[in-house]
Amino acid sequence: MLTPILSSASCSWTPTSQFPHSWHSSPSFLTKPLNLPFTESYKTAKRPTPNYSFKVQAMIEKEVAVSHKPDAFLRESDMGSNVTSNSSSVRGRFEKMRREAQDSVCLAIEKADGGAKFKEDVWSRPGGGGGHSSVLQDGAVFEKAGVNVSVVYGVMPPEAYRAARPTDNGNVKPGPIPFFAAGVSSVLHPKNPFAPTLHFNYRYFETDAPKDAPGAPRQWWFGGGTDFTPAYIFEEDVKHFHSVQKAACDKFDASFYPRFKKWCVDYFYIKHRDERRGLGGIFFDDFNDYDQEMLLSFSTECANSVIPAYIPIVEKRKDTPFTDKHKAWQQLRRGRYVEFNLVYDRGTTFGLKTGGRIESILVSLPLTARWEYDHKPEEGTEEWKLLDACINPKEWI
Amino acid sequence: MLTPILSSASCSWTPTSQFPHSWHSSPSFLTKPLNLPFTESYKTAKRPTPNYSFKVQAMIEKEVAVSHKPDAFLRESDMGSNVTSNSSSVRGRFEKMRREAQDSVCLAIEKADGGAKFKEDVWSRPGGGGGHSSVLQDGAVFEKAGVNVSVVYGVMPPEAYRAARPTDNGNVKPGPIPFFAAGVSSVLHPKNPFAPTLHFNYRYFETDAPKDAPGAPRQWWFGGGTDFTPAYIFEEDVKHFHSVQKAACDKFDASFYPRFKKWCVDYFYIKHRDERRGLGGIFFDDFNDYDQEMLLSFSTECANSVIPAYIPIVEKRKDTPFTDKHKAWQQLRRGRYVEFNLVYDRGTTFGLKTGGRIESILVSLPLTARWEYDHKPEEGTEEWKLLDACINPKEWI
Repeated sequence: MLTPILSSASCSWTPTSQFPHSWHSSPSFLTKPLNLPFTESYKTAKRPTPNYSFKVQAMIEKEVAVSHKPDAFLRESDMGSNVTSNSSSVRGRFEKMRREAQDSVCLAIEKADGGAKFKEDVWSRPGGGGGHSSVLQDGAVFEKAGVNVSVVYGVMPPEAYRAARPTDNGNVKPGPIPFFAAGVSSVLHPKNPFAPTLHFNYRYFETDAPKDAPGAPRQWWFGGGTDFTPAYIFEEDVKHFHSVQKAACDKFDASFYPRFKKWCVDYFYIKHRDERRGLGGIFFDDFNDYDQEMLLSFSTECANSVIPAYIPIVEKRKDTPFTDKHKAWQQLRRGRYVEFNLVYDRGTTFGLKTGGRIESILVSLPLTARWEYDHKPEEGTEEWKLLDACINPKEWI
Repeated sequence: MLTPILSSASCSWTPTSQFPHSWHSSPSFLTKPLNLPFTESYKTAKRPTPNYSFKVQAMIEKEVAVSHKPDAFLRESDMGSNVTSNSSSVRGRFEKMRREAQDSVCLAIEKADGGAKFKEDVWSRPGGGGGHSSVLQDGAVFEKAGVNVSVVYGVMPPEAYRAARPTDNGNVKPGPIPFFAAGVSSVLHPKNPFAPTLHFNYRYFETDAPKDAPGAPRQWWFGGGTDFTPAYIFEEDVKHFHSVQKAACDKFDASFYPRFKKWCVDYFYIKHRDERRGLGGIFFDDFNDYDQEMLLSFSTECANSVIPAYIPIVEKRKDTPFTDKHKAWQQLRRGRYVEFNLVYDRGTTFGLKTGGRIESILVSLPLTARWEYDHKPEEGTEEWKLLDACINPKEWI
C-alpha cells in the first residue's frame, strides 16, 4: 500500500515547460503536472500540457539516518500486493537499475581516482522510502563526486487529478493520488581543468489509483539525461561524449538524440548570462508516449552509457599539465555551475524550498568556485572558444 | 520631467514583507509596494501594507558604457523644474551623500589595502539615470571589494497607485506614476579569514505626481542597512561593530537600533539551512513614517558610520596569521554568502530576472567560495561558535 508522507507546509505548484532535472532527496517531480490518463500507445503525439495552477502540500517528511545500506528502498508490500505485476515489475527493475548505476559509477570513479573512497550516507523516512548519498571529496583526480539515489512515496492532491482530466467536468472526485518515484543522480567534478564535469540523472514516476476509485487509470513517466561541462574544448572529447549519447538513443528511436540534445540545450540555460552551463548532452522529462518497457530499457541504456561516455575522457585528461590561469578559468566556470544550480535548476530550487536533505541537494555544487568581476576572455583564446560554444550551441556530430 | 525608461517585457509584481536590500543597477525597489499618500508626520504608526498582486512592466533599459564619471546621475531638469524645491533638494542631497559615501569608502579601502586601486565602470541609460561600479579585486588585503551607485528613472503602473489607495474606490484613474530612485551599495570581502566581510546599502525612492493628476500626493521612502559577516568571532569586534550602528541609530530614535537589528536578523536568513548569513547589523526598508529631513540625515549618518564601524576591525585582523583550516572555513562561509545572495536576496534575484547589469549585480559574490559535503564543525570549536551564533542570533551589546 502506498502511504502518504507529505506533511502540512504548503508551496506553490507551478508546472511549466521546464521540469526538474535533478534528483536529490526531495520529491522534485511534484513540480511536474500529471497527464492522466496515461497512454501506452507507441509513438503517440505529445499531448499538450494542461494549463493549471494550484497549491499542493509539498513539505517532505524529515529523513532519519540509518546505519546500513538496504538492498532496495522499495517496500516489499509495494512489489505486488495492490499494484499490477507489470507496474510492480517496472518499479522493481528501475530500483535495480538505479542501484546498479550507483554501484558501477562509484566503482569506476574510485578506480579512476586511484585511492579515495566514497563516503556513504543512508537514510529512510518513517512513512516509506529513503535515500543514499555516496560522496568522494578531495581525491587525487576528483574534487567532488556525488551519487544520490532516492525513493519517495507520497500523494498528489486530487485537484491535480481533476485538473489533468478536464473532460470529466468535475464529476470524478477521487481522493489523493498515491505516487511512487525513484531516481539516481550524480555530479562529478574533477580537479584537472582539462577534465570535464559530468552530470546525469534518471528517474521513474508512477501513480496508483485513488483508494476510492480503484478502476481509475494510473500514470507513469520517465525523465533524465546526461550532460557534461568542460572548461576547455577538446573536440575529440566532445564528439566522443555526444556519440555515446547518440548511440544509446539510436538503439531506440532515431528522433531521440536530436530531440533530447535540443531539450538539454534549452534546459541548462543561464538566462541572466545568455549562455549554457556547458556543452550539453541529452535531457528528457515527462516521457511516457512510448511503450513503458521500451522506456525502461532506454533509461537503463542511458544510465549504462555514463561510464563509457565519461571515464575515457577523464582518463585522458586527468594528468594533463596546467597553469594557474587554466585553474582560474575552470573555477570561473564552476561559478557558473553554482549560478545555474541555485538560480534555475528546478530540482535544486524545489528541494531547498521543501525541506529535502540539504547536503544531498547541494552535493552538486563544486568544492570550490570563483567569481571575477567583468571577466571577458580575449577573442580567439581557448577560454573564449568554450564561452562561445556555451553562448552559441553547436552540432558536434 | 521624469521620463519612463521601462521597456516591454513583464515580470511578476509580488510585494511581500521582505523587501529588497541590495542596490545594484536594477530597479529592485519595484518589488516594494507604494504606500500612497505619503505622510510627513513624525512618528506616526506604521501603516499596514496593502495586499495586492498584479503585473508591472519591469525589464529595464539596456545600459550604455560611458568613459567619464559624471558629478551626478540626477538630471538637471529634475532638480527643480516640475518638482517642489524640497523634493528636489532631498534628491540632490541624497545624490551628494551616495557619491561621498562611494568616494570615502573607496579611499578608505584603498588605504587599508595598501596598493591596489579600484577599477571604475560608468554607464548611463538613454532614458535617464545611470550607474557606477568601483571594484578592487585580488588586492593585498581585499579579495574583492565592490561599491555600486545607481540612479534610475521609471514609471510605476497606475494599478499600483489605485491598489495602494483602496478608499478611492477606483474613482482616481491617473496615468503611470513617474518615480526616481538612487542608491549606493557595497560588499567588501577581505582575504584574511579573521577579517569579516561587510555589506552596506542606502537608497532613496520618490514618486512624482501622475502627469494627468498634478495635485495628487507623492510618495517617498528610505531603505538600507549595514551588516557584517565574520568567519570567526572576536567579541570585541562584534561589540564595536554593533556599538557604532547603535550610536548612529540612537542619535535619531532609541527604538531604531533594536528594531533594525531584528529586521537585519530576519532578512539575512538562509532558510534551507536555518541559519543567518552572518552576525547582523541594521536593516530597514519602506521607511517613511518619520520626517523626511530626519530620515535623510539618518541615512547619511548610517552611511558615514561604515568606515568607523569596519575599517578598525580590518586593520586589526588583516595580518593575523592563519592556517589552511582557517581559510577553508572562511571559504565555506563564503559559500553560504553565495547561497543567500543567489537564492534569497531580493535585489539580486530581481536584478537577475529583469536584465540589470549582471556584473554589477554579482559583484557581491566573493572571489572564491567552497562547498564541502556535510561539513559539521566540532562542538566547542571556534568554527562551531560562529555557526551557533548564526543559528541562534545573540544580543551583542
